[in-house]
Amino acid sequence: MRSAVVLLSGGLDSATCLAWTRREGFEAHALTLDYGQRHRVEIERAAFVAKSLGAVSHRTIALDLSFLSGSALTDVAIDVPKGRAAQEGRSGVPVTYVPARNTILLALALGLAESIGSRDLVIGANAIDYSGYPDCRPEFLDAFRSLARLGTKAGAEGAEWRVHAPLLALSKADIVRKAVAWGVPYAATVSCYDPEPDGRPCRRCEACEIRARGFAEAGIRDDSAEIA
Amino acid sequence: MRSAVVLLSGGLDSATCLAWTRREGFEAHALTLDYGQRHRVEIERAAFVAKSLGAVSHRTIALDLSFLSGSALTDVAIDVPKGRAAQEGRSGVPVTYVPARNTILLALALGLAESIGSRDLVIGANAIDYSGYPDCRPEFLDAFRSLARLGTKAGAEGAEWRVHAPLLALSKADIVRKAVAWGVPYAATVSCYDPEPDGRPCRRCEACEIRARGFAEAGIRDDSAEIA
Repeated sequence: MRSAVVLLSGGLDSATCLAWTRREGFEAHALTLDYGQRHRVEIERAAFVAKSLGAVSHRTIALDLSFLSGSALTDVAIDVPKGRAAQEGRSGVPVTYVPARNTILLALALGLAESIGSRDLVIGANAIDYSGYPDCRPEFLDAFRSLARLGTKAGAEGAEWRVHAPLLALSKADIVRKAVAWGVPYAATVSCYDPEPDGRPCRRCEACEIRARGFAEAGIRDDSAEIA
Repeated sequence: MRSAVVLLSGGLDSATCLAWTRREGFEAHALTLDYGQRHRVEIERAAFVAKSLGAVSHRTIALDLSFLSGSALTDVAIDVPKGRAAQEGRSGVPVTYVPARNTILLALALGLAESIGSRDLVIGANAIDYSGYPDCRPEFLDAFRSLARLGTKAGAEGAEWRVHAPLLALSKADIVRKAVAWGVPYAATVSCYDPEPDGRPCRRCEACEIRARGFAEAGIRDDSAEIA
């Protein structure tokens, strides 16, 4: 059975990616980074989601990313902005961009994948709602695949790496529909950038706004605010 | 003043890279990964080297890489081979290859560099003595530069990233000569894959053999075995 490494944050998108991976017939190995995020409840939710969706393994790797300054998600000195208008920095890159985040995540996934014999990486990158993030673009994902081929023993031996971003071109409403259709325990997922300690969303940050719009458009009730 | 992020392991090569970085006129920010290596004395030596060579900062990031199996350097179930003949796996990649090691290291360096406004990364990759490692090849380093351009906010804003591997085409004897000429406290560096707890080299692994040959060829006495 083919296996894949799925980056799992505890949010709706990566949970939906895990469901996709299982439906595609992969044995799924989930990988969560405990990077000192503000929203630590994500880590617990990731474990729940991994189990619910039948991942064969789930690893949580501790890597304190507080040395990455300049992002509202890792730097406690920067407030998480509320509302879309407040989001964008120069050149349209949001202040919630974490320097080299997806490069670091994919590098770790690559190392794990090579260690266990997987050749498939799955990441919840989305180029629609997160169009401002450079590391959510198809060109970036292609570049990572080239890098994987050149920088690994498996690649040197002729293996083909694949970087799947099954949500890349989906709207949030489409992701919500897929999540529901594929049995994702979406109410347990945390999308909020700045949740309450019990996981309840703030309902005001960009991620909450995008999520709320997605559920509204899909005509589905989001119970996540009721779960704690 | 331009600044650069230098990956510093505590070994001779990365120490020489730090000296190169300073000579090139960069403000140097050293980055060491505490990845649960067998040779933990490297971490202490890295701090000493960073200070000796005038790095303006030195960060040690804890990231337990034990989830990367299959390498003699991180997997305690695999013995570090002694002698070059025992080194090479299928297709000439040594068993001391750590899955995606340089991809992970460069990804972290990239994140730090973007956070502090550096656009230059320095890594002690060497394609002569470590020709079997896929992630020490020029093509890999070029691919990483492309990835950095595509995957960062700085890149999206037009910044050019540079990945320097000043030792890439040098023999170990040449590296030893440079280290001496540039004032690297080489006796304090640890190249050994399997050192004694006090840092004394085993003198039998491939890294020790390459180092000994390099010093012999350069006609320089290596005092590292006397330091503890």
